[in-house]
Amino acid sequence: MWNYKDFIGIKNLTKEDIKHILDLSFEMKQQMINDKAREIKQTRGNMTTLFFENSTRTKHSFYMAGQNIGLRVTDLAIGTSSVQKGESLMDTLQTIDSMGTDIIVMRHSESGSQEFAARNCKASIISAGDGTNEHPTQALLDAMTILDKKGSFEGLKVTIAGDILHSRVAKSNLYLLNKMGAKVTFTGPTTLVPKAITQMGAKVCYDLKESVKDADVVMGLRIQMERQNSGAFPDLREYNKTYGIDGAIFDYAKKDAILMHPAPVNWGVELDRSLFTAPYSVISEQVTNGVAVRMAVLYMIMEYRNNRK
Amino acid sequence: MWNYKDFIGIKNLTKEDIKHILDLSFEMKQQMINDKAREIKQTRGNMTTLFFENSTRTKHSFYMAGQNIGLRVTDLAIGTSSVQKGESLMDTLQTIDSMGTDIIVMRHSESGSQEFAARNCKASIISAGDGTNEHPTQALLDAMTILDKKGSFEGLKVTIAGDILHSRVAKSNLYLLNKMGAKVTFTGPTTLVPKAITQMGAKVCYDLKESVKDADVVMGLRIQMERQNSGAFPDLREYNKTYGIDGAIFDYAKKDAILMHPAPVNWGVELDRSLFTAPYSVISEQVTNGVAVRMAVLYMIMEYRNNRK
Amino acid sequence: MWNYKDFIGIKNLTKEDIKHILDLSFEMKQQMINDKAREIKQTRGNMTTLFFENSTRTKHSFYMAGQNIGLRVTDLAIGTSSVQKGESLMDTLQTIDSMGTDIIVMRHSESGSQEFAARNCKASIISAGDGTNEHPTQALLDAMTILDKKGSFEGLKVTIAGDILHSRVAKSNLYLLNKMGAKVTFTGPTTLVPKAITQMGAKVCYDLKESVKDADVVMGLRIQMERQNSGAFPDLREYNKTYGIDGAIFDYAKKDAILMHPAPVNWGVELDRSLFTAPYSVISEQVTNGVAVRMAVLYMIMEYRNNRK
Repeated sequence: MWNYKDFIGIKNLTKEDIKHILDLSFEMKQQMINDKAREIKQTRGNMTTLFFENSTRTKHSFYMAGQNIGLRVTDLAIGTSSVQKGESLMDTLQTIDSMGTDIIVMRHSESGSQEFAARNCKASIISAGDGTNEHPTQALLDAMTILDKKGSFEGLKVTIAGDILHSRVAKSNLYLLNKMGAKVTFTGPTTLVPKAITQMGAKVCYDLKESVKDADVVMGLRIQMERQNSGAFPDLREYNKTYGIDGAIFDYAKKDAILMHPAPVNWGVELDRSLFTAPYSVISEQVTNGVAVRMAVLYMIMEYRNNRK
Repeated sequence: MWNYKDFIGIKNLTKEDIKHILDLSFEMKQQMINDKAREIKQTRGNMTTLFFENSTRTKHSFYMAGQNIGLRVTDLAIGTSSVQKGESLMDTLQTIDSMGTDIIVMRHSESGSQEFAARNCKASIISAGDGTNEHPTQALLDAMTILDKKGSFEGLKVTIAGDILHSRVAKSNLYLLNKMGAKVTFTGPTTLVPKAITQMGAKVCYDLKESVKDADVVMGLRIQMERQNSGAFPDLREYNKTYGIDGAIFDYAKKDAILMHPAPVNWGVELDRSLFTAPYSVISEQVTNGVAVRMAVLYMIMEYRNNRK
Repeated sequence: MWNYKDFIGIKNLTKEDIKHILDLSFEMKQQMINDKAREIKQTRGNMTTLFFENSTRTKHSFYMAGQNIGLRVTDLAIGTSSVQKGESLMDTLQTIDSMGTDIIVMRHSESGSQEFAARNCKASIISAGDGTNEHPTQALLDAMTILDKKGSFEGLKVTIAGDILHSRVAKSNLYLLNKMGAKVTFTGPTTLVPKAITQMGAKVCYDLKESVKDADVVMGLRIQMERQNSGAFPDLREYNKTYGIDGAIFDYAKKDAILMHPAPVNWGVELDRSLFTAPYSVISEQVTNGVAVRMAVLYMIMEYRNNRK
């Protein structure tokens, strides 16, 4: 049973919470695929998307997920260019909240914004990306995909390559996979993979091939092009040469290893173009599972709200 | 009973029309809050929002209101930057009208545009702001909030501060409050509060403190920043010093006076920042009531249309 | 019965296919107009609009059509300015497809993009404009309007004036009208009306008056202003003088001839302003029929998908 008003991170969830959401997600996936079952899990209420950072894909995924379970969905199309100061964020939240929406799906570049929103709104806050902090539904959809392919998390080795330092996806995945019994290895340039992250329970390895050795899952993260000029970031060609994932890398991983990526991929940077059609790529399934996971989270939150009335 | 195809102003409504809408609005608010009652008042049909001036909040409020009562809502995302000439407005209206929408929720910077639209469309036109002329649903949500807090309009003193000359909110409020038996006092710089408005039944007072004396309601209007360079408009700091509302002003008003503002507030200009959390502020309730009032108006118009078929 | 996953052109349809869609379209129009019948033809599923070229009107028409038959509609708001290369188009399609949408309504400036999409997606692709190739729902709504006014296509003379060379509307209309037994005459400047098009079954005539002689239908096409500087295109005033349609032109056509245009009209260029209120203009009916035709196509495609499950 779910017992929180909001859904803003993996960090504080129990193993049972995660299992509960994943079970519901598999059920929701059946609902998506099987037409006859399509309308079984339905709820009602209002959901508003509030994205202070652009993300066509994630917003669309939440939008469809909400519609699929019967929510009335609207997007508050705020100018993403205008600087949103603390007071103005509060104003915006108070307005949406006062309009009586049940759920606010929120993305913001400042870490902690969702926690701030959760404290100040009657509506339930669902994180769609929280600064460099967490991106919990991404970790859940990754977990769902891994579970679907591997049957269990216990003892799995998951290697994640890229800009770990700034990645909310990496952080949420680390929290989740640790809780579920899998082991995470991070790899990437020393400037982007801090040694200190080992204190959070991850291994760190600066050699891609070695990091991938015996891996069950190889995940590339998206390089944020806007970080290119920050100094810490290597040249793209250089990055690709040293940490780009190609077919040859999979010789080092387990025979049945799968390739993952949160998408959209910068083909030729994080992943070699030849992997676009690789049979062990599960990137499309991740997208499908993303809708299912979001249906589950939204449904669960609505159940919680309705039970408390 | 409502007997008009369109809803474009307060000016021509009777006291009974207004009472009818307010009654329905309180019922709709129950529907918003109480989950079990949520689906009682449902209708069906198409609603299109057509905003020639930007307004994220008002559009969102109408959007949610339409969805809440079961309408299929779409936004015609016209380029607000492109100049919309008369012919082109006619073309746009004819297109939406021909697509078979039942309701067009319209905002336009030219006064009289909604009347033009109402004459030329089979669809019902609902005003979401008509140049410097009227903003009828804003006046209704203000009235609903006042009625909720004060129990009656009879003999109330409502003081409205700001740019009265260009304000459609001020005009719609004046029409409505006069009809319902309340008394309106306008205050603000002489360039923005014309003496002539006393002919419409308002008092005018250029001293904020005096204007607020024994007031039941103190309402600040939003300063339109784009009017800053028009010459008639004072410096913002100057404005705030002379007509900015703060806590001390409420010493002059009645003990149980309430603070209102159509939002979004320019904090530090119309209202002092300290009023953000003032217990007598009903600004959030105004936002909630805005959705309820719009549900009522949309529902009432759909009833009228369905009865005539 | 409809037997294809996608709807991307008129070219390969049979006369029976077209009759089937038109029958269903008239039924859908009744559903739009008659409130009691409104909910008879309902389906369920997800529809996503994906427009790589801007078109407020066509997108809105599809959006309303989808909502009218019960689909959950979302728009993937891609940046239309960013160049969409082959790989990136594939990426975008794969993402939407993986999210489990049933229908993608797509417009793209490159001819053949829909065919590419149809081959690569599980979702059904519906064309909303395919480069300079086809615009099949426009041809259907034109056909529906002609059939409604004339009772039959057999032996009708349809004269189409404008930039035939670049017009997907002209091409789809030619395919459809030829199949149904009507005769098409194209007229316009020699640079924009290639002689070679006679091989596709059309007549070509460079004199507007002569081309219109005994016509049952006179259709003006929209001039694409962005083609103005391409060299092949005449001055607008020159174009209007030679190929602009005015009331006097209808003296040459049949007495009961109708005026059509895909809209929006550049008044004063393709059509004389005086025709805005001409009693023989059916431009508004074309817009209405556009929603009906799209409801029919979307419904038909959903039926096909549901039957195959």
